[in-house]
Amino acid sequence: MSAFRIIKRDSCGPARLGELQTGHGVISTPCFMPVGTKATVKAITPKQLADDIEAQIVLANTYHLFLRPGHLLIEKLGGVHKFMGWKGPILTDSGGFQVFSLSALRRIDEDGVTFRSPIDGSSHRLTPESSIAIQEALGADIIMAFDECTPFPATSAQALASLELTARWAERSRRARQRSDNLLFGIVQGGTFPELRRLSLEKTVALGFDGYALGGLSVGEGSAAMYDVVNEFGPQLPEDAPRYLMGVGTPEDLLVAVAAGIDMFDCVMPTRNARNGMYFTGSGPLSIKQARYCDDPEPIDNLCDCYTCKNFSRAYLRHLFMSKEILSSVLATIHNLRFYHLLMAGMRSALAGGEFQLFKHFFLRGYKGQG
Amino acid sequence: MSAFRIIKRDSCGPARLGELQTGHGVISTPCFMPVGTKATVKAITPKQLADDIEAQIVLANTYHLFLRPGHLLIEKLGGVHKFMGWKGPILTDSGGFQVFSLSALRRIDEDGVTFRSPIDGSSHRLTPESSIAIQEALGADIIMAFDECTPFPATSAQALASLELTARWAERSRRARQRSDNLLFGIVQGGTFPELRRLSLEKTVALGFDGYALGGLSVGEGSAAMYDVVNEFGPQLPEDAPRYLMGVGTPEDLLVAVAAGIDMFDCVMPTRNARNGMYFTGSGPLSIKQARYCDDPEPIDNLCDCYTCKNFSRAYLRHLFMSKEILSSVLATIHNLRFYHLLMAGMRSALAGGEFQLFKHFFLRGYKGQG
Repeated sequence: MSAFRIIKRDSCGPARLGELQTGHGVISTPCFMPVGTKATVKAITPKQLADDIEAQIVLANTYHLFLRPGHLLIEKLGGVHKFMGWKGPILTDSGGFQVFSLSALRRIDEDGVTFRSPIDGSSHRLTPESSIAIQEALGADIIMAFDECTPFPATSAQALASLELTARWAERSRRARQRSDNLLFGIVQGGTFPELRRLSLEKTVALGFDGYALGGLSVGEGSAAMYDVVNEFGPQLPEDAPRYLMGVGTPEDLLVAVAAGIDMFDCVMPTRNARNGMYFTGSGPLSIKQARYCDDPEPIDNLCDCYTCKNFSRAYLRHLFMSKEILSSVLATIHNLRFYHLLMAGMRSALAGGEFQLFKHFFLRGYKGQG
Repeated sequence: MSAFRIIKRDSCGPARLGELQTGHGVISTPCFMPVGTKATVKAITPKQLADDIEAQIVLANTYHLFLRPGHLLIEKLGGVHKFMGWKGPILTDSGGFQVFSLSALRRIDEDGVTFRSPIDGSSHRLTPESSIAIQEALGADIIMAFDECTPFPATSAQALASLELTARWAERSRRARQRSDNLLFGIVQGGTFPELRRLSLEKTVALGFDGYALGGLSVGEGSAAMYDVVNEFGPQLPEDAPRYLMGVGTPEDLLVAVAAGIDMFDCVMPTRNARNGMYFTGSGPLSIKQARYCDDPEPIDNLCDCYTCKNFSRAYLRHLFMSKEILSSVLATIHNLRFYHLLMAGMRSALAGGEFQLFKHFFLRGYKGQG
């Protein structure tokens, strides 16, 4: 029996309402996964994540936890759920993206990647086999095949070589799996070249995974190019499996991608921007450092039900940000993650009620991009 | 009718169990006041402060709020309680201590103090009248007379001049009061000179205040000298008014001072040390950065009921600290403030049960100083 079930389809396009069964509970899709890089969603407690945000699932980064404190330590302590005090589902990425974006002196060969730790300069190696072993030691509910994240810009030849390597690594990732209590997702690469995306998609689907991700997007190609890939290939990913758009994105991105049939997202934007004093609202982003908010008694967003909006004025939140108080990051993170949660919950309700296109239209009409 | 009421006295000494009525509720004494310098107890939400710590009252700093965001702004927004989202009582200090410890280029004259803001170098002035006006604009439940905090070391002549200025400023502070919904405390200075402490105490008590503080301690004189002052003059402060030992201290300090009849305390130690990875426990301080905790599955303190101890291992807390995660500060602050709360609650229970000396004895026997 498949872990994924479609509950309702949008009558005007590939968007769908679904449910994904994991070892730590059911996720309603489409859904957004807050990023808990180093086994903590930065600035908030698991209790706030569960009670104030009602997050369904958290993403943790294999690369970071492998380097510190180490997956074997976490395994010994009972796995990443127990370690970080999060009872819900956890997805781990494969480590591939961070190896390519964060590590100095990386060296790729057919077998895997050698790289230096940015923490202490020590040398490490990740292969498809070790990535899966690490993710299984962490005990994530959803694990990702080890891929090479195709850089942007890349020539067609580079993107082809990269997707072919990713496909070989995907097959090795599949075979490396030891546990049966997790779901393994494959990753489609191919950069912004439609024919290469198609090739990667075919190769990945031929192998067979529990879910499929579009990778290598939101890496500098711009939203128009990203939307082209998502609009064309989102709907081509297997219908009966969850579809995950990695590392994306803005509220607009999420609406566009759900409309293209994507079910799952992760992005550091709500949490990272929170720490920079940027709050998401229904009418667009709000930068709390602006002087105009210095005596503003209103909450960030009158329509928001979060702890931050129910208890604090823009004037107070600006004071916290200007004073570099930790609470600024805490309250902004709570709000932004709740905003993303409510956006996804709104999409799910609209899908359930057959009004997704209307919801998308009205949301985008009121929302004024990256301010 | 007095706002302060003694419920029970220790049969072996001046310690007492009491209640202080304020405009935002009753405080059980002896009690510890978490420091909310800039209208936030660093790293935690007011909800965590109320629910997880069960704090009774918070201290906010007049000096900081005067400089940023400004007391008039806070007044316009409904006062400091509403501004920071804290429904319980708030005490503000007079600003005197920070003027002397934090400001460059301060110049004292009979009328008041001129100083430069460390934020932008702008020039400001505080007088007894303006300090009281600021504290009343903030709307604190307990306000402090504007004093000169006698520096340490000071000669007897310097300490005498300082306490006499403080006494003249205390009288002006009393007269500057406009509101009747707060309590005004006077501050006894005099450094470590018993005869000067006695003189300052007489002058302050002669003026008449709602409560009395011992100031100018924990400024470098060492705990032996501090205990001498507290043991001699704590019991000499008026019996029928709350007694407040400012800026103190360690768990041992609190026990010694309560034994000397002190009712109220504030100190940045539990919150500041939390951000440096130091956790208080019943057997002494624990520095979470130590390598020995890297795989320790135990909570910080098995006997603690706080959110941190109920949910996280030392290994995880060490990981957060080593990774410089914000959550490290959050969880350590929750634990340390809860530790201080439980210590004070333990003293209150022991006072109620007539076992304070026993409690003090057993606590100090198990507690191994500053590790």
